[in-house]
Amino acid sequence: MMLFGLTPGRWLMSQRHCLLHLQRRIFTSEHPPRFAQGAVLDSILSAFRSICGEDGVLLGEAVREQHGKDESLHRCCPPDVVVFPHCVEEVSALAKVCHNHQLPIIPFGTGTGLEGGVSAVKGGVCFSLRNMDQILGLHQEDFDVTVEPGVTRKALNAYLRDTGLWFPVDPGADASLCGMAATSASGTNAVRYGTMRENVINLELVLADGTIIHTAGKGRRPRKTSAGYNLTNLFVGSEGTLGIITKTTLRLYGLPEAMVSAVCSFPSVQDAVDSTVQTLQAGVPIARIEFLDDVMIEACNRFSSLSYPVTPTLFLEFHGSEQSLKEQVSTTADITQSNGGADFQWAQHAETRNRLWKARHDAWYAALALRPGCKAYATDVCVPLSRLPQIIVETKEDLIENRLTGPIAGHVGDGNFHCLVVVDPNDPEELHRVHLFTDRLARRALAMDGTCTGEHGVGLGKRALLCEEMGSMAIQVMQGLKDTLDPNNLMNPGKILLPKAL
Amino acid sequence: MMLFGLTPGRWLMSQRHCLLHLQRRIFTSEHPPRFAQGAVLDSILSAFRSICGEDGVLLGEAVREQHGKDESLHRCCPPDVVVFPHCVEEVSALAKVCHNHQLPIIPFGTGTGLEGGVSAVKGGVCFSLRNMDQILGLHQEDFDVTVEPGVTRKALNAYLRDTGLWFPVDPGADASLCGMAATSASGTNAVRYGTMRENVINLELVLADGTIIHTAGKGRRPRKTSAGYNLTNLFVGSEGTLGIITKTTLRLYGLPEAMVSAVCSFPSVQDAVDSTVQTLQAGVPIARIEFLDDVMIEACNRFSSLSYPVTPTLFLEFHGSEQSLKEQVSTTADITQSNGGADFQWAQHAETRNRLWKARHDAWYAALALRPGCKAYATDVCVPLSRLPQIIVETKEDLIENRLTGPIAGHVGDGNFHCLVVVDPNDPEELHRVHLFTDRLARRALAMDGTCTGEHGVGLGKRALLCEEMGSMAIQVMQGLKDTLDPNNLMNPGKILLPKAL
Repeated sequence: MMLFGLTPGRWLMSQRHCLLHLQRRIFTSEHPPRFAQGAVLDSILSAFRSICGEDGVLLGEAVREQHGKDESLHRCCPPDVVVFPHCVEEVSALAKVCHNHQLPIIPFGTGTGLEGGVSAVKGGVCFSLRNMDQILGLHQEDFDVTVEPGVTRKALNAYLRDTGLWFPVDPGADASLCGMAATSASGTNAVRYGTMRENVINLELVLADGTIIHTAGKGRRPRKTSAGYNLTNLFVGSEGTLGIITKTTLRLYGLPEAMVSAVCSFPSVQDAVDSTVQTLQAGVPIARIEFLDDVMIEACNRFSSLSYPVTPTLFLEFHGSEQSLKEQVSTTADITQSNGGADFQWAQHAETRNRLWKARHDAWYAALALRPGCKAYATDVCVPLSRLPQIIVETKEDLIENRLTGPIAGHVGDGNFHCLVVVDPNDPEELHRVHLFTDRLARRALAMDGTCTGEHGVGLGKRALLCEEMGSMAIQVMQGLKDTLDPNNLMNPGKILLPKAL
Repeated sequence: MMLFGLTPGRWLMSQRHCLLHLQRRIFTSEHPPRFAQGAVLDSILSAFRSICGEDGVLLGEAVREQHGKDESLHRCCPPDVVVFPHCVEEVSALAKVCHNHQLPIIPFGTGTGLEGGVSAVKGGVCFSLRNMDQILGLHQEDFDVTVEPGVTRKALNAYLRDTGLWFPVDPGADASLCGMAATSASGTNAVRYGTMRENVINLELVLADGTIIHTAGKGRRPRKTSAGYNLTNLFVGSEGTLGIITKTTLRLYGLPEAMVSAVCSFPSVQDAVDSTVQTLQAGVPIARIEFLDDVMIEACNRFSSLSYPVTPTLFLEFHGSEQSLKEQVSTTADITQSNGGADFQWAQHAETRNRLWKARHDAWYAALALRPGCKAYATDVCVPLSRLPQIIVETKEDLIENRLTGPIAGHVGDGNFHCLVVVDPNDPEELHRVHLFTDRLARRALAMDGTCTGEHGVGLGKRALLCEEMGSMAIQVMQGLKDTLDPNNLMNPGKILLPKAL
């Protein structure tokens, strides 16, 4: 029941596939059943230790458990061992050992993913990259910086504080930047600054056989290029299934002179979405435009001690010069008022603004607080803007019909939204209802020319839906790319693509 | 001497490779020597005609010549036949015939490329896509449109005229939008609106075996997605070597309320570039910021009857509301003045503005007019912004030392610039000097962490430089992708990647 995104029949089939794979592995010894044993195990561990030291190879249950799960409901599948390399050469040497012994490799950043991306479904070796936490090259005049995988979004922005620059992509969690590249993350201000796809200039990667490559050539950082196949964007969003990201070169932006946030309540979802479309059409370079439905607003009010009207609501943020802000706000206010929106409630000072966005980022916890003791599952669909009102209205009806609690929050400027379904993990019947609901929601998005995942990635949960979304021919192309770059299926196996039919 | 980007030694080696390939083809009959003969030829042509009609299959020398060249100096290699399909099903059926007979396929849009991308170096079948010129889906509220390969940039913007929307990517030439996707084109306003990489939402493609795929799933058009491998950006910039683009879904933008252009002269290249960096740092959302060196300005003055001071110059354009323009201009003017820039010369009315940008877009012809009867070769390197002054100064010295005429124009906000080298095509010694110069320029860019091509692509001319830029491991990955998607090397063979060692 935990594998969301699969209908019960296909879920069982996928389990059967896994079982058959496992049996084949045991019977043919193509791969060790879980990990090696006896002398071979000793030799592997000894090789790992010679590469990253005694402290860099951990086998304890607690450490393995901690590295086998993310923030989703997907079942924790701990790896057999966790290694902690310090540099790309160590990652490469470790990968070579894994390659020689055909051991799965699962990269681990901060474990803040939402689709089971770090779950070691076939066991293997988790590469925790937390010891690689250097900011290696900051070029202020060129608006770029290079970071290792242990550097998080907040750590980078703290480092940049006095430079007048920042890295705006903000998925909410304080994720590692290389992990964000791996899952093609985005978040609240993608409407203005783009997603990781638009903001990664170069990647250093270790491939399945330990080879080190640079997707745009070693040390290169042109702001644009048309030099050959776009390897950078092939690896951005590949969720560790094609290689381990060991460095990311990112675009930076000038910090806006001023920022101001506002909250606006609407009579209906349609009014809020119409306001969004018209604001974009008017060319307002809005930095964030976040939708919260009545259930979400009520949850945020309770959790963060706020008192916004319990109706569909937009949280807005404007970036620019003082003068430009006035104009952006005035244009947007005219638009929202013409769509029945209430007067803006302001958050101009940094403290009030941070409180507002903290409330938005705490939506997850606010949702959980609606039913203490429960867990949350965040759906993640994205549709063309014009289809948002219909899909949100239909989804709210679906939730009510199926007696589910699911506040809705969305990056409405991109047509991307999440339903944070709160569920009792000990109630299999409710889990089943949630599972069916999330499938219906994804299929509703697909029927409206959208995607089953706007920013969380495919991981374990959306492999079957990805097949429906892409069609069998495009999936074959994806499988061909995977087979080329990782012929033995060692890199984060079982993610993005369903196991091949036997 | 025509194959720029190769040192004489490597150029000879590459010629030898081609010869060996040709010999192998003749001797082993793995491929027909040029095209089929006798009954086989008749059967192929008959199959083509049954798919796209008598008028849709042309063999005349003039038509073939016309389809074997672009706007570069690369030698014209005419295809053996030109076909004119009307729809994706015809493209697929034609590709299947080519696949069955192992005939090379070369897609042709408008022939405005600059690196020999349409040259039929191994003969084969040119697919002219000019009959597929429908604008298929315009979704104003969703800011997207889908076009067939015969639709050019100007045709689309003419179609959009009354919608309040536009497609801003502007490489100068009135190229086909699918061709622009194929070469990852950009141009003057990429600094604000991005390149084709950031503006293609979905592609329909025909693969080497005739399979039709949609890189983001059929009919899908979410503004963002993290659903599986980013096939869209693997095919954007693949220059027809992985598949034929038969539809492109593009992002549109709201037409700015107002636009204003200005010209500003500087004492030095450094001053012009410093102004650019500071303008970007100040967060001015500048739409175009184009650099012209003294030689280029003089050529434009002569060609377009203008009278700008003959010094390093920026052409600027601002988009936004009337009020926002005032502020953008005032901030930028403060910056340019603090760097020794002269007062802005204004082009506020559409007519004056168009005249200004026509002069910029006519730079190619202005350069040619410096030496009537000569041809031009446009180099295309891109470096981090801070390296621009040094590379431009060194390049100007190199031109003088080597007695070459090469005005410089650049999309300075991206660090991308072109040297338009004017050369007598009948003077082998001068051609050799140009060839050595362009190689030195590309290597200078590589030594400054840049790329050998910012927007023209690799084509024939930069295959060896691409190897230097990417390193052998990344090239192997590119070759692996090519082999997976086009195992028989039928799709636009000989472009991007050098022939494999025999």
